[in-house]
Amino acid sequence: MDIAILDNVIFLGTVTVLSALQNVFFAYRVQNESLHKRSGQTAFERVSVANRNCIEVYPTFLALLWTAGLFCSQAPAAFAGLLYLVVRHKYFVGYLGETSQSLPGFFFGKRLIAFLFIMAAAGIVNYATNYLFGINFLFYIQTATKASAALLLIP
Amino acid sequence: MDIAILDNVIFLGTVTVLSALQNVFFAYRVQNESLHKRSGQTAFERVSVANRNCIEVYPTFLALLWTAGLFCSQAPAAFAGLLYLVVRHKYFVGYLGETSQSLPGFFFGKRLIAFLFIMAAAGIVNYATNYLFGINFLFYIQTATKASAALLLIP
Amino acid sequence: MDIAILDNVIFLGTVTVLSALQNVFFAYRVQNESLHKRSGQTAFERVSVANRNCIEVYPTFLALLWTAGLFCSQAPAAFAGLLYLVVRHKYFVGYLGETSQSLPGFFFGKRLIAFLFIMAAAGIVNYATNYLFGINFLFYIQTATKASAALLLIP
Repeated sequence: MDIAILDNVIFLGTVTVLSALQNVFFAYRVQNESLHKRSGQTAFERVSVANRNCIEVYPTFLALLWTAGLFCSQAPAAFAGLLYLVVRHKYFVGYLGETSQSLPGFFFGKRLIAFLFIMAAAGIVNYATNYLFGINFLFYIQTATKASAALLLIP
Repeated sequence: MDIAILDNVIFLGTVTVLSALQNVFFAYRVQNESLHKRSGQTAFERVSVANRNCIEVYPTFLALLWTAGLFCSQAPAAFAGLLYLVVRHKYFVGYLGETSQSLPGFFFGKRLIAFLFIMAAAGIVNYATNYLFGINFLFYIQTATKASAALLLIP
Repeated sequence: MDIAILDNVIFLGTVTVLSALQNVFFAYRVQNESLHKRSGQTAFERVSVANRNCIEVYPTFLALLWTAGLFCSQAPAAFAGLLYLVVRHKYFVGYLGETSQSLPGFFFGKRLIAFLFIMAAAGIVNYATNYLFGINFLFYIQTATKASAALLLIP
């Protein structure tokens, strides 16, 4: 995106990425505690928990999607976002499945979230190096993310 | 908004709209299951459930509000957003009301969310046809949304 | 930020700020009710409640952070956002602490949220006065927020 516009939002984007990182840290804490706890068995409890788990990660996902797209490269970020939607759908449907089968964890799509986070962080670091030392890696970062986005398709 | 800026976020906006659509799908599943389930009767449980229901839809609402405003037309989107705030307030207050009366459903403001979604989707489709075939309907879409925004006032 | 771009999002930002204000109102209602209610004592319940409390305020925080940064001044908004992350971390860790000690309330970081809200509201009011009367206070508002941001460090 245009550098002149990014100048106005670079700090906001940095704080957003940091807060998303903190959200992920919180989510891991919850997951660690919830490993030994069985979720409810009624259909309502299952669909309610599945929906809540999806909703809780949603603002984090949106923030990372937009910061990755604005500060780094749009197409790979949108591609990773689409894959995340697919993974989320599978997660939601899997949560509603057989009561006897084991439930999926609290946190899903870790790889896609990590990919978006790395993209956003790389864009912000590149902005800093460009400002401080006049070194701009953005073209190489964008090429690398475009090439590695295809690797996300590997299950 | 300026086409040159929209170029940078059109894919991100598309994924955002898709994810909001998926959120609504999840919410409907929860609502279908929760029809036969009574919520808690203490004041704390009621206010807590009302707040949670509002909060869960909030990121979806924000995402649709901004994508509708950016990709289509600002004034009708902001108008629908204001109406949504009114509806949400009535929902919240209604949830705290008499214990004997029936509770409102899980999902509220469906019409306003649908209006914002149609605006955002129309803007994105128009962007695609403009890019592919050079056909730009945006002016007609904006006129239609401005005219139909008044219809949202009908209870 | 550039006035020409702000023209396209000023109404959306206004509705966003209003909705954030409404969220805070809802959160206060929950807090008032929850004062006499003890939270669960198991580690999972504590970490789950702490995470949910943080997540529920997250979209409100993000919306205020960005509207404050776009409509008023970027650096103080990002600074307040960073402080909020610190406060949130202390809140989360405090929630997981000794079972015997009293739990922190439902709503935290009130001062930082209020600071961001005042910044966003001042920016929007300034936009209106600039449009209606041609009076632009933005420079003074930005100076005042930059000066008062340091006061947020006082515990």
